[in-house]
Amino acid sequence: MPIEQGGRVSWGVDHLPYGVFSRPGQAPRVGVRYGDRVLDLAAALHDEVFAAPSLNPFMVRGRAAWQATRALLREKLTNDMAVTEAHLVPLEQVRLHLPFEVADYVDFYCSLDHASNIGRIFRPDAEPLLPNWRHLPVGYHGRSGTVVVSGTPITRPHGQLKAGVFGPCVKLDIEAELGFVVGTPSEMGAPAGAFEDHVFGVTLLNDWSARDIQAWEYVPLGPFLGKSFATSISPWITPLDALPRIPGPPQDPEPLDHLRRRADWGLDIVVEVAINGEVVSRPPYASMYWTPDQMLAHMTSNGASLRVGDLFASGTISGPRREERGSLIELTWNGNDPIKLADGQTRTFLEDGDTVTLRATAGSITLGEVSGTIR
Amino acid sequence: MPIEQGGRVSWGVDHLPYGVFSRPGQAPRVGVRYGDRVLDLAAALHDEVFAAPSLNPFMVRGRAAWQATRALLREKLTNDMAVTEAHLVPLEQVRLHLPFEVADYVDFYCSLDHASNIGRIFRPDAEPLLPNWRHLPVGYHGRSGTVVVSGTPITRPHGQLKAGVFGPCVKLDIEAELGFVVGTPSEMGAPAGAFEDHVFGVTLLNDWSARDIQAWEYVPLGPFLGKSFATSISPWITPLDALPRIPGPPQDPEPLDHLRRRADWGLDIVVEVAINGEVVSRPPYASMYWTPDQMLAHMTSNGASLRVGDLFASGTISGPRREERGSLIELTWNGNDPIKLADGQTRTFLEDGDTVTLRATAGSITLGEVSGTIR
Repeated sequence: MPIEQGGRVSWGVDHLPYGVFSRPGQAPRVGVRYGDRVLDLAAALHDEVFAAPSLNPFMVRGRAAWQATRALLREKLTNDMAVTEAHLVPLEQVRLHLPFEVADYVDFYCSLDHASNIGRIFRPDAEPLLPNWRHLPVGYHGRSGTVVVSGTPITRPHGQLKAGVFGPCVKLDIEAELGFVVGTPSEMGAPAGAFEDHVFGVTLLNDWSARDIQAWEYVPLGPFLGKSFATSISPWITPLDALPRIPGPPQDPEPLDHLRRRADWGLDIVVEVAINGEVVSRPPYASMYWTPDQMLAHMTSNGASLRVGDLFASGTISGPRREERGSLIELTWNGNDPIKLADGQTRTFLEDGDTVTLRATAGSITLGEVSGTIR
Repeated sequence: MPIEQGGRVSWGVDHLPYGVFSRPGQAPRVGVRYGDRVLDLAAALHDEVFAAPSLNPFMVRGRAAWQATRALLREKLTNDMAVTEAHLVPLEQVRLHLPFEVADYVDFYCSLDHASNIGRIFRPDAEPLLPNWRHLPVGYHGRSGTVVVSGTPITRPHGQLKAGVFGPCVKLDIEAELGFVVGTPSEMGAPAGAFEDHVFGVTLLNDWSARDIQAWEYVPLGPFLGKSFATSISPWITPLDALPRIPGPPQDPEPLDHLRRRADWGLDIVVEVAINGEVVSRPPYASMYWTPDQMLAHMTSNGASLRVGDLFASGTISGPRREERGSLIELTWNGNDPIKLADGQTRTFLEDGDTVTLRATAGSITLGEVSGTIR
C-alpha cells in the first residue's frame, strides 16, 4: 500500500506522519498518512482526541502517549489490516488543513554557510559572521497568525522598499527550513526539559521573505514586515521517532554548558527546492551548525515558557556548495547572478505565477512537501 | 459608588473597562469595573458570551456590538441600579486574570525621544536616529506566550551577557508602554480597515527588558531573549470610546499615503512609573511620534492578517525631559547616573524584591495599573 519511490517505501509504518484532514461537508479531524491514504484516527482508535480540528489536544498528552499511539498504529497497520482498512481514506478525497494551532513562532539562523553568505553579500569588506553567531543560535519571533498550510496561495507583499517608496516587493524570496513543533508546555521562569520530551515532530517550512522590505526595515529591531506576510508549512508532521539522527557538526568554541549537546540531534535530511517543478538546489540539513536541541535550550534559557503548538524553525538551510543554498538571495548572489531554468528562462527573485515546492528525504522516508504559488 | 481621586470620578460610567475575574471556586468570566466593584456581565446582561474566561469571544463581535454594550451598561448603571446592584461584586472578593488570549504580540518603537536617547547611549558619535526611523514605525514580534497579568511575579532572567558568560541578568529594566488590543480580524493578503473598526481597547504594558542579554544577542535579527521572559499588562482593557483623543505631533517627512493619519489618534494619557511606591518618572503619551492608527496600518501594509487577541504596543513612552523617560536605561543613562530614591537608596537597574508599578490617567479616567515584583 505505501508508495514506492526509487525502490524505497516512503509512507509506510516507519513514517506515519500526523495531519488534519476533512472529507467534503465534514469537519476537520486528525489523521495519519499511510501510503496514498489517510487513516481516520478518531474512528480507528476510538479516541475523541483525534476528532479535534488540530493536533494540539493530542500533542499536549506528552511523549509517552505519542509513543504508545505510534506503537499501536504500527501494530494495526501491520497485523490488523482487515479491521483498519475501513478507516483509510484516499488522499484525493480529502482536503488537508493546517495541522496544529500555532502558538509562538520563532525563526533561528542556524546555518553557518547561510549566515556567512548573507554576511558576504551585505558586508563584503567585513568578517562574514557577526561576533555573537558562534556563541548562541541567533533567532527572533515571527508572526504565528500567518503560518499557512502548503498549497495556500501567497500574495506578493507591498511595502516600503526605501525612503519614500511604497509598492510591490521586487525581491521576493524563499527560505528552505525545517520547523519543530512543540507538544508539551514548560513553566515560566525556568528552562525547559529534554528536547524529546517537548518536541512532537518536524515539518518542512518555507519562510517567504521580501528582501527589499527587510533590508530597509530591519535595523535595529530585526525582520518584521519582510517576513510576516506568510510562512508555509507541510500538512504532515513527522514524529521525532521516525527521523534518522546523527551527531551535529563540531562547534568552536565549545558551547556554554546550557547549550551543550546531550544527545545526537543532528538530522540526516536532504531538502530539495523546486521552482515550477525544476529542482534548483538541494540543501543538506546535516550541515546545520546549531542543532534543534540547542535551539530549544537557548529559547527557554531565560525562563520563557513553552506552550503546546509553539513552532521554531532552523533558518535557511544552506550547505557549503552553490547547489546547496536554500534561498534565492544566495543562489543568485542578491540578483547579480541569475539562475537558469530549463526552458531558457532565468530567475533572480520570484515572479508572479511561480510555484515553489520544497521536498525532503530523511533516510528511507519522504517528508510532507510544502508548496506555494505567488499571485 | 465610583472612586473619587483628586475630585475626579475615576471608575464611573465614562470609563467601564473590561476584564476577566473569578470568585473563589468559580470559573473566570468577563466583568466591567465600576467603582471598587466588578459587574458580572453574563449575569447582568443575560449573554453567555461573557461567561467565557477571556474577552476574545466578545471582542470578535465587532465595533457595533462594543458600542451597543457600552451604551447598555451606561444605561443600567445610571437608571437601573436597583436591578444591576445585585451583579456588582466587590473587587476584594475576586481574582483578576489575563483579560484576553494573546494571539500575536508586536512591540513598536514610536517615541522620538526614546529612540534618540537609545541612539545617543549606544552610538554617541553618530546621528541618534537611524535612517528608517522617521519613515515608518519600526517594530518587531515579541513572545505572546509570556504576556502575563499585573501582579504576576517576574523571575530575573538568566542569559548570555557576553561571549562565554551565562548568568543572571544584571541590567534588568522596564519599559512603560501602552498596548492596543485587536478585536476583529482582517484577511490575509490585504491591509486592514479603519483603526477603530479593529481595535477594541487599550491596556497599560510593562515590557520587562534584560539590557545585557539584549545588547549581546540583538544583531542582526533584533531583540529575543532580552524581552521574551515576561511582558506584563493591566487586568483592565479601556475601550477606545472612553479615551480623550488629540492630534498626533507633526511629522517630517510627511508619511507615505498608507501611513497618513485619517483621524486624530493621538492620546492624552500621562503614565506614572513607580519603584517600590515612589514615582520616578511621568512619561507623556501625547508626545509619541507615531500614533497607534499608523502602527496598525504599517503592521498590515504587507498583507499580514489580524486575529482577535492580537496585541501591539507603542514601545517605551519617553518625553523630552529627564523626568519623562519611561525606562531605567534612559533615566540612569545606562547605569552611569543612578536615580536616588527617598530612603537614601539608589538604583541603576532593578534589584531583587523591587516592585514596579505603572499607572496612567487619561483625562478624567484612571487606567488599570500594571505591577510586578522581581524575584
